[in-house]
Amino acid sequence: MPFEEQEFLDWLKATGRGHERLAVGIGDDGAVWTGAGGAPLVAVMDSVVEGRHFRSGTPLSLVGRKALARNLSDLAAMGARPLFALASAVLPASFSVEDAREITGGMRQLGAEWNCPLAGGDTSVHDGELILCVAMLGEPFPGGPVRRSGARPGDAIFVTGRLGGAWRCDRHLAFTPRLRESELLCGQGPPSAMMDISDGLLLDLHRLADASGLGFRIDADRIPGNEDAGLEQALSDGEDYELLFTWPACRRLEVPALGLPAPATEIGLMQEAGRILVAGGRAIPAPRSGYLHG
Amino acid sequence: MPFEEQEFLDWLKATGRGHERLAVGIGDDGAVWTGAGGAPLVAVMDSVVEGRHFRSGTPLSLVGRKALARNLSDLAAMGARPLFALASAVLPASFSVEDAREITGGMRQLGAEWNCPLAGGDTSVHDGELILCVAMLGEPFPGGPVRRSGARPGDAIFVTGRLGGAWRCDRHLAFTPRLRESELLCGQGPPSAMMDISDGLLLDLHRLADASGLGFRIDADRIPGNEDAGLEQALSDGEDYELLFTWPACRRLEVPALGLPAPATEIGLMQEAGRILVAGGRAIPAPRSGYLHG
Repeated sequence: MPFEEQEFLDWLKATGRGHERLAVGIGDDGAVWTGAGGAPLVAVMDSVVEGRHFRSGTPLSLVGRKALARNLSDLAAMGARPLFALASAVLPASFSVEDAREITGGMRQLGAEWNCPLAGGDTSVHDGELILCVAMLGEPFPGGPVRRSGARPGDAIFVTGRLGGAWRCDRHLAFTPRLRESELLCGQGPPSAMMDISDGLLLDLHRLADASGLGFRIDADRIPGNEDAGLEQALSDGEDYELLFTWPACRRLEVPALGLPAPATEIGLMQEAGRILVAGGRAIPAPRSGYLHG
Repeated sequence: MPFEEQEFLDWLKATGRGHERLAVGIGDDGAVWTGAGGAPLVAVMDSVVEGRHFRSGTPLSLVGRKALARNLSDLAAMGARPLFALASAVLPASFSVEDAREITGGMRQLGAEWNCPLAGGDTSVHDGELILCVAMLGEPFPGGPVRRSGARPGDAIFVTGRLGGAWRCDRHLAFTPRLRESELLCGQGPPSAMMDISDGLLLDLHRLADASGLGFRIDADRIPGNEDAGLEQALSDGEDYELLFTWPACRRLEVPALGLPAPATEIGLMQEAGRILVAGGRAIPAPRSGYLHG
């Protein structure tokens, strides 16, 4: 049996023992820990593997950037600002100190944009490909943290920015983590549920609906696809790192009024049951397809 | 030029920009962050790579255990207790969900002993060996945190437990992180400087002396070697994960009176300059040799 990440995650969630200070554990974009004096902390961790998350030959500064950016995006998804990062690098035996500096440079440059220093980590060398693992601590924006599980029937579904073609067009190496959007949304809302789109809109929306115990109905004509991507790509491609969130329908006009740097588009609504994609005038069961990372 | 970890670390330390809330950055066993209300947090991160940190064929629960234990040891070295852990696994393509459960089981069992839940992380699959990356957040014991850099001339040098042969005899898979010892030492002292011995007593003592800007003089006859290890192994083998710490000489009798579960042995003293190993009645320059991980 090959490794099935979802099966493993389900087992982890079902068997985890919890902890009185662990407010959110495995299964969301990040963990929430009750810190000193009750102030919540948000912790995320994510790796990039050569050949899976970036192509061999990618400039190393962009690899470092992406490793950091994915974690920043996870914090944005949780409604949290970054505090600091740790990084562990497993380097090919052919790598030099200069190569490691390039990776670090890409991390530091993006980290500086978000006031998130690289505080520590470690390095190993192996006979294999480049692997970077980053962990990050954050603290909620006012209104945060936000989970995947809080959507209610009737909530409007929004996505920021535009979707599709991120891998083919290398946007996955240079995306802007939606931290500003997250801060504005948390301050006004917060969203009833939120996550980032890393594995494709459809699959991630199914996950948000799973976590919230609901169905949804979205309209293909309203999906904000990139100009270089078709509908199928906008629905199923991964690596967009846009925010997917839900908002009480009666207050939906607040969202465009926020002036988000990456504007949010309303694409449908949450409902009690049934997961429907309306396309070409027909309502079909929404497929779960999407780009699944190994 | 092959990758030289020390050269890279020196560059990282020399070029890091720092942050007002980052009290200790790269170069110690962990980072210290000034949390909400001024309460310090200690963050560590460390990876284990198949073939480097454990042999192929090692029971997977022991691999998971070791990945967690190394981080617990880093927290002990910083004078901090664990709060929670995050883990990122890069799995061989041949691995099953059951394999991932075994790894998790080893982590969870050790984590439960130290009240340190697994709060999150991620998994990837690749065409390569097993790699586990763990990050951990901690908070200082009363008296902590403790750095490598605080030793003063005349301080007595101690090590906990016994040294040498850990890899050959597989003790590196089952060692007890010296958290109890660290808590007792911090409560009574704290030590003027502390670190864990992962790369061999000599090399790590050189590093502590480097960080403190001092020399040292140790007596080979007093090194507490394991019964199955000779002096050379006790001085240079890695993977012991014992604590190496310094203590004001005038208060040295406090240390044996603490009743540490792994008793500490006094092996020498810090001095202004010169790094000396006294062996067989001769004082020689202390070699820097030790087991260097790739």
